[in-house]
Amino acid sequence: MILAALLIAAAAPAAAPTAAEIEAAAPAAAWRAVEPENLMLVDTARGTMVIELAPAFALEHVAAIRRFVRAHAFDGGAIVRVQDNYVVQFAAKPPVAPPARELPAEYERDAAGIGFTPLPYPDAYGQAGFSDGWPVARERGKAWLVHCYSAVGVGRDNPPSTGDGSELYAVIGHAPRHLDRNIALVGRVIDGLAPFAALPRGTEALGFYKTDAEKLPITTARIAADMVPEARPRFEVMRTDTPSFAALVTARANRRESFFVRPAGRVDVCNVRVPVRRVK
Amino acid sequence: MILAALLIAAAAPAAAPTAAEIEAAAPAAAWRAVEPENLMLVDTARGTMVIELAPAFALEHVAAIRRFVRAHAFDGGAIVRVQDNYVVQFAAKPPVAPPARELPAEYERDAAGIGFTPLPYPDAYGQAGFSDGWPVARERGKAWLVHCYSAVGVGRDNPPSTGDGSELYAVIGHAPRHLDRNIALVGRVIDGLAPFAALPRGTEALGFYKTDAEKLPITTARIAADMVPEARPRFEVMRTDTPSFAALVTARANRRESFFVRPAGRVDVCNVRVPVRRVK
Repeated sequence: MILAALLIAAAAPAAAPTAAEIEAAAPAAAWRAVEPENLMLVDTARGTMVIELAPAFALEHVAAIRRFVRAHAFDGGAIVRVQDNYVVQFAAKPPVAPPARELPAEYERDAAGIGFTPLPYPDAYGQAGFSDGWPVARERGKAWLVHCYSAVGVGRDNPPSTGDGSELYAVIGHAPRHLDRNIALVGRVIDGLAPFAALPRGTEALGFYKTDAEKLPITTARIAADMVPEARPRFEVMRTDTPSFAALVTARANRRESFFVRPAGRVDVCNVRVPVRRVK
Repeated sequence: MILAALLIAAAAPAAAPTAAEIEAAAPAAAWRAVEPENLMLVDTARGTMVIELAPAFALEHVAAIRRFVRAHAFDGGAIVRVQDNYVVQFAAKPPVAPPARELPAEYERDAAGIGFTPLPYPDAYGQAGFSDGWPVARERGKAWLVHCYSAVGVGRDNPPSTGDGSELYAVIGHAPRHLDRNIALVGRVIDGLAPFAALPRGTEALGFYKTDAEKLPITTARIAADMVPEARPRFEVMRTDTPSFAALVTARANRRESFFVRPAGRVDVCNVRVPVRRVK
């Protein structure tokens, strides 16, 4: 067995690497840190949902969310909605003070001014790609975050002006790309989503819970920048304009793990999954 | 309020209908029954997972699954794996008798001989569409079922010959289209998936449960054809070669619900979701 393992190891360099191998071998320069100001922690008895905020795409919504966190508005809030194959949604503790003014509809931004690494495969919804570690689509000079699994957005009622950042959802199903450009995406869950995706589905319309007793309470929400540096969790995201990421996309499109008998030769933007790692 | 409701109702015919309205108005001819021989029920203390089997795409795998059900091989089995954003997997009670012979790799079939209604939008993985109520893709004379949310496939180890139908998975995350044509899809869950998608994720590699105590037992599995007719649950699936379904695809691509400010103008095959209804 040991001899066989050695023979396999010796032969390995000749084979194209898998996504896991590319991630493990990526140099330090292939990663960027998640800024403490963009790292939001939502603590519950089921664990902590770790969110990276994306001010480059929704500056005012992200600022509003940080204000709610810093005013302890989410402390004592709850998970209010879990809709199967769709979203888990959490809300600040009511009553929420109305915002001083309506937030702009930050559903897309100018494509100029941010990097864009196109995905070299077709996309059902237009031109998809990546920007600074985020899955992004663009069209006619505009760019926007894509509703992949784990994307975090600002819940709103029908009038676009009604989202104030006090109620956020995370995607837990097939990418609802029809929501792209209809709602402000403000980030994504980079760690700890699974226990929330496993919560019981709500029985009211749209998966809202019927009773307060069903709602998992939020103990507290924090921005990492407000914690003492030694206590802050640290995460890194693979840079999407690097040779490592390009190799990873190719490996995701052409699965080399021994399970696969017919690699697809292509991959959709939400099946690439940008690597994220926790730093000790 | 009543007056307002009447005014809205009177104005409705002028507006393009929503998917829900199209489904509600679809005539009887727009639906087909799920054959009792293709209706598989997996009973647990968390509810019943209702599966429609697809012999048109995996004849021998479906026959093997029916044999396991009729031999009561799944009775006393369990949910053995829940991997977040991927699959819930259940297995017959061990030990499972080895099959008399290996099943063929029914990962695709000849496109000739089945209907195909193309989706009139691009697909990240090729040409997608629908056949007899199923999401399907095709290429170079071959057709295959697509790994949308709720798709049911036959678990296997790395050698393609190792799937015998005694262990099945259902997709509970973003469509893992890289699995298309790498594994035998045998159907989809048409009712009751949500409680299983909400099970705790397994902590072993690939989301397998570590201990037997974590595994939700299967009470029994049944084929509806084996039940007395009055006791059989009855389901209908919208026919995908009908004007009703064509209208539904258009409505899914161009969301008319008042929430939407910018309809996408397109939709991917897994976001169409073929309507299924329970018949009393």
